[in-house]
Amino acid sequence: MPEPKNPDYERVVRASFAAQPAMATIGARLTRVVPGETEVRIPFRPDLTQQHGFLHAGVVATALDSACGYAAFSLMPEGAGVLTIEFKTNLLAPAKGEALIARARVVRAGRTITVCQGEAVMVREGAETAVATMMATIMTVRDRPDVVG
Amino acid sequence: MPEPKNPDYERVVRASFAAQPAMATIGARLTRVVPGETEVRIPFRPDLTQQHGFLHAGVVATALDSACGYAAFSLMPEGAGVLTIEFKTNLLAPAKGEALIARARVVRAGRTITVCQGEAVMVREGAETAVATMMATIMTVRDRPDVVG
Amino acid sequence: MPEPKNPDYERVVRASFAAQPAMATIGARLTRVVPGETEVRIPFRPDLTQQHGFLHAGVVATALDSACGYAAFSLMPEGAGVLTIEFKTNLLAPAKGEALIARARVVRAGRTITVCQGEAVMVREGAETAVATMMATIMTVRDRPDVVG
Amino acid sequence: MPEPKNPDYERVVRASFAAQPAMATIGARLTRVVPGETEVRIPFRPDLTQQHGFLHAGVVATALDSACGYAAFSLMPEGAGVLTIEFKTNLLAPAKGEALIARARVVRAGRTITVCQGEAVMVREGAETAVATMMATIMTVRDRPDVVG
Repeated sequence: MPEPKNPDYERVVRASFAAQPAMATIGARLTRVVPGETEVRIPFRPDLTQQHGFLHAGVVATALDSACGYAAFSLMPEGAGVLTIEFKTNLLAPAKGEALIARARVVRAGRTITVCQGEAVMVREGAETAVATMMATIMTVRDRPDVVG
Repeated sequence: MPEPKNPDYERVVRASFAAQPAMATIGARLTRVVPGETEVRIPFRPDLTQQHGFLHAGVVATALDSACGYAAFSLMPEGAGVLTIEFKTNLLAPAKGEALIARARVVRAGRTITVCQGEAVMVREGAETAVATMMATIMTVRDRPDVVG
Repeated sequence: MPEPKNPDYERVVRASFAAQPAMATIGARLTRVVPGETEVRIPFRPDLTQQHGFLHAGVVATALDSACGYAAFSLMPEGAGVLTIEFKTNLLAPAKGEALIARARVVRAGRTITVCQGEAVMVREGAETAVATMMATIMTVRDRPDVVG
Repeated sequence: MPEPKNPDYERVVRASFAAQPAMATIGARLTRVVPGETEVRIPFRPDLTQQHGFLHAGVVATALDSACGYAAFSLMPEGAGVLTIEFKTNLLAPAKGEALIARARVVRAGRTITVCQGEAVMVREGAETAVATMMATIMTVRDRPDVVG
């Protein structure tokens, strides 16, 4: 596990996540934060589905994007802002089940650019099925706190 | 404008969009459908924002994903299902303003694979600012209607 | 056309391209440079093909990557270095014909991050066919000239 | 390790690789083939570099693309063709050293779509440094052998 630059990383990450109204709207919770790794969980809800009753791909991508961003943020220095530059996601299987879990980890943490990989699974009767994978590029913003998000 | 294979394309596309509860949950409307092009609009809402009050990147990506998928679907033959294989989005600027508009168009419509490009803008005091761009790969599914979405 | 920050942009871009031995190895030439836009051309050669005699996807991606990087570079300030962070390419059709032309343009030029889009076509008996599209993220490097490339 | 559908997979993969003139041109060798995993190696050569003497990003992407495509191909049924739909690569560090090794593995092998992940490292004085990561989407082509590659 990489060494966090900010000893207070967990509190900072959890506070930022909690300050995102969109996460509450889709029922997303940040269920794990360690240096360079996070887990975001979204229980199944019918109002988050597409026409076949599975979680919408946009919801899956939102969970992965959030997990990747906060995995990157957990390794950033105190006072830094986090900005997602881009992400790419492959959808592997329909998101059916009781809950979505998006897990992300930092692949490379540079001074300015952090690259993260994420995997989303659906939990169904106790078993996990991979439903999506993500590669994301995140920027450490030092001097422009207002562009963060 | 490409020739649609399904003369009833607009009705089919609008019906599929209307059958996605997630779209209603985030207030997304399908505001334009022509062969190979669509537009999805999401009015600003505080409960869709991140910590700085801008629309969350996941919401922006969801709108683009939806616009790309339905642009592809508009050119598919009758009875086909539409399946998003992957998408990649670059976030260009904070999504601040009164409404998000995601526009997508088909770049190449093959027998099995369709490639779409999308652009999302925020409308603010009558002017549009580009906030994200997407490239998406969508599959025409002929024989497995249940994997659609 | 955007205003270049470096009035000497064309010379700087052409000099950098000329200093890349890999470009000569695959016969790539920089055939157009204007602020925010470039064109790279690779004449067909049998030793650049895959098993069916078309240009290899890696060659197509290399041309697009180069075109995107130099389109970004053309808008950077004097003394800056250019670093490709990531790119994504969709292959649209087999690359058959007499020459590949990769065209790129800057979608957004930020202080640190530039986003470019590229399109590659094959020229065949005077007509162009789109064979690939690219979205690339490029970084302006001010203080670490050695990481460029 | 997944079960190959074609018991003769290794011969078929190696024959296809050997039939690509572009691989010989850049000195790429297929150094490992097991079901769902491959390794491609390119020894350093000055004529494959960019302006700072590192392997060009296009060469790195070509090696990863090839490794991903053949990892997917190794799990395809007899008689199938392999077609790369798209790939995305993040460049993590300058490609300096004695040789590039691109390793790929199948993340999901579907009936039509296979998703692969790849990682490229440079070998330098016996140690490996990660220089790039790739996510690729590959299609199994059953009835159109001419579009393969």
